[in-house]
Amino acid sequence: MVNVAVLGYGVVGSGVVELIDNNNAIFSEKLGQPIDVKYILDIRDFKGDKYEKKLIRDFSVIENDPEISVVVETIGGIGAAYDFTKRALTAGKNVVTSNKELVATHAPELLILARQKGVSYLFEASVGGGIPIIRPMFYCLAANEINKIVGILNGTTNYILTKMIYEKTPFDKALVQAQKLGYAEADPTADIDGHDTCRKICILAALAFGRHVYPECVYTKGIRDITLDDISKADAHGRVIKLLGSAKKLENGDIEIFVSPCAIRKTHALANIEDVYNGIMVTGDAVGDVTFNGRGAGKFPTASAVCSDVIDAARDSIQYSIFWKDEGRDFIRSFEDIKFNYLPGTDIPVIE
Amino acid sequence: MVNVAVLGYGVVGSGVVELIDNNNAIFSEKLGQPIDVKYILDIRDFKGDKYEKKLIRDFSVIENDPEISVVVETIGGIGAAYDFTKRALTAGKNVVTSNKELVATHAPELLILARQKGVSYLFEASVGGGIPIIRPMFYCLAANEINKIVGILNGTTNYILTKMIYEKTPFDKALVQAQKLGYAEADPTADIDGHDTCRKICILAALAFGRHVYPECVYTKGIRDITLDDISKADAHGRVIKLLGSAKKLENGDIEIFVSPCAIRKTHALANIEDVYNGIMVTGDAVGDVTFNGRGAGKFPTASAVCSDVIDAARDSIQYSIFWKDEGRDFIRSFEDIKFNYLPGTDIPVIE
Repeated sequence: MVNVAVLGYGVVGSGVVELIDNNNAIFSEKLGQPIDVKYILDIRDFKGDKYEKKLIRDFSVIENDPEISVVVETIGGIGAAYDFTKRALTAGKNVVTSNKELVATHAPELLILARQKGVSYLFEASVGGGIPIIRPMFYCLAANEINKIVGILNGTTNYILTKMIYEKTPFDKALVQAQKLGYAEADPTADIDGHDTCRKICILAALAFGRHVYPECVYTKGIRDITLDDISKADAHGRVIKLLGSAKKLENGDIEIFVSPCAIRKTHALANIEDVYNGIMVTGDAVGDVTFNGRGAGKFPTASAVCSDVIDAARDSIQYSIFWKDEGRDFIRSFEDIKFNYLPGTDIPVIE
Repeated sequence: MVNVAVLGYGVVGSGVVELIDNNNAIFSEKLGQPIDVKYILDIRDFKGDKYEKKLIRDFSVIENDPEISVVVETIGGIGAAYDFTKRALTAGKNVVTSNKELVATHAPELLILARQKGVSYLFEASVGGGIPIIRPMFYCLAANEINKIVGILNGTTNYILTKMIYEKTPFDKALVQAQKLGYAEADPTADIDGHDTCRKICILAALAFGRHVYPECVYTKGIRDITLDDISKADAHGRVIKLLGSAKKLENGDIEIFVSPCAIRKTHALANIEDVYNGIMVTGDAVGDVTFNGRGAGKFPTASAVCSDVIDAARDSIQYSIFWKDEGRDFIRSFEDIKFNYLPGTDIPVIE
């Protein structure tokens, strides 16, 4: 029996609990043994919830239960999530997470800790929601030198831009629509100012180039100032505006990385990724361009990615740490040093 | 030291040899040990070739060399390739292949043999060239019940259709162009009559649904009869014609699978996959639709996929066999029983 503890019973956490329950036969077949969520940790009450009996409030119960082999961290942020992750790894438990902020901030330390303990720290769900990207990059493109990654990595801003492009809805109104649909949070800063995209491109860059990239070193501009006039100017040049995270390895080994609204051709592989979908284009020296797209967020798409990691963690010990070193910050090319063309009459970079 | 033998020194085989040489440092880092191609098996002469010294003609040298842990089969077909694969697996060697015909025809037997011997039989390169698809489906979507797979799985026909759609080039002329560019073979039957697509959708269906699907049971129609008039009719309905492989699980567990030119909306996730690119859309119950696209063929893209399997095989033993059983043929829904809408004035199915 694989016993799982889920930390944080929010949208993603509850999705994980439901998915393990709903598709239990699929999990068991792939694991060769049954699987069950033994504990759900949350400080809130969930009276009458189907899984109410599994709810606990004391993390030490999980930490000290030798039956728990996989801990799913869907708390988010870098407070309790960081503390519990370290404690779970230290206790010799595999940890699986959707927490991009924690991965982008503390991955080198957590990966080394996991390695020392012979367990896995997995984060497929931290980038691109349900889209398989971490494992494909790590395994399927393993024979390549990866030169470049460009992605639409945030569903909320892509939804807003899609409304602006196709329905000529101004930014403020599109944001309100996104909030009404639950795509944007009450405080939408992390999405619309690009911080969420920044964390994700940092994770992808680290995986591709083997070096941790600290989000605070990355030039990050969101879509708050994009106007319908910008959208029209792009259209007049056969382009659309997308919020991109971009990371490129330069010839001297330095990394050029930024987050910015960019004008891309309508025939670009990412131009038709619309609404809340995410799309990620990876360029390898042997494979050329490969693009992955799908739902970048949401309860079950994200739970799908978390649960694939749960199955992996329960089956094998997987170690990303050896390819992800903390080598400081000097290798990051300053945004001001990047030579862009700009969409005429705007400060929006043109990307080919 | 990981010692590799490459069977068949054609386009893909030579790509594998070159890639292992060119990116040797990347391979070594990921493997934690050096890697070398010790033998290349081919019956032809390659006088003056850079790797001439590695060329041998007698498979038993490879079979009997205990230093060889990974055999790469890029011979193609189901003659010598089948024989050598069985012998290599029997000798306890991992086998990696790009040979879709062999996988589509004999995978259940070969997977069981690999399992008995505790080695891997891997075939990421058999579908979608360099596009990561086999591993992502098997691992990253492991928590999903996969309901449907639709793909543009053949680069040659997609190139021809792209020429017909965008340059109004008639089929015959577009085929000649594809041949001139090396995309189509002198005998283009396997591509243009859909057999290549058929093998690939059979492999994907088997992985998704856990049952081997014999290519000869699958209704297969190619693009030989598509006219510019058909293309125009599709355009008038906001659609494009693509050669699709499609596999769907029905509620009673049966499988609906076919290969046919289909009319899809211009906004469909596969509509903008052009030229020699392939695109594959997988639908899971949790993740929704995810789409993968990239170069579906070619020397280095295919070598990229083969080599990712080489790294995996050398690192771990991976077993797909448990999810891929030979359960006969009765579960395949006849094409005549599928209710299609047709593009008006044609016999081309409309797919939403």
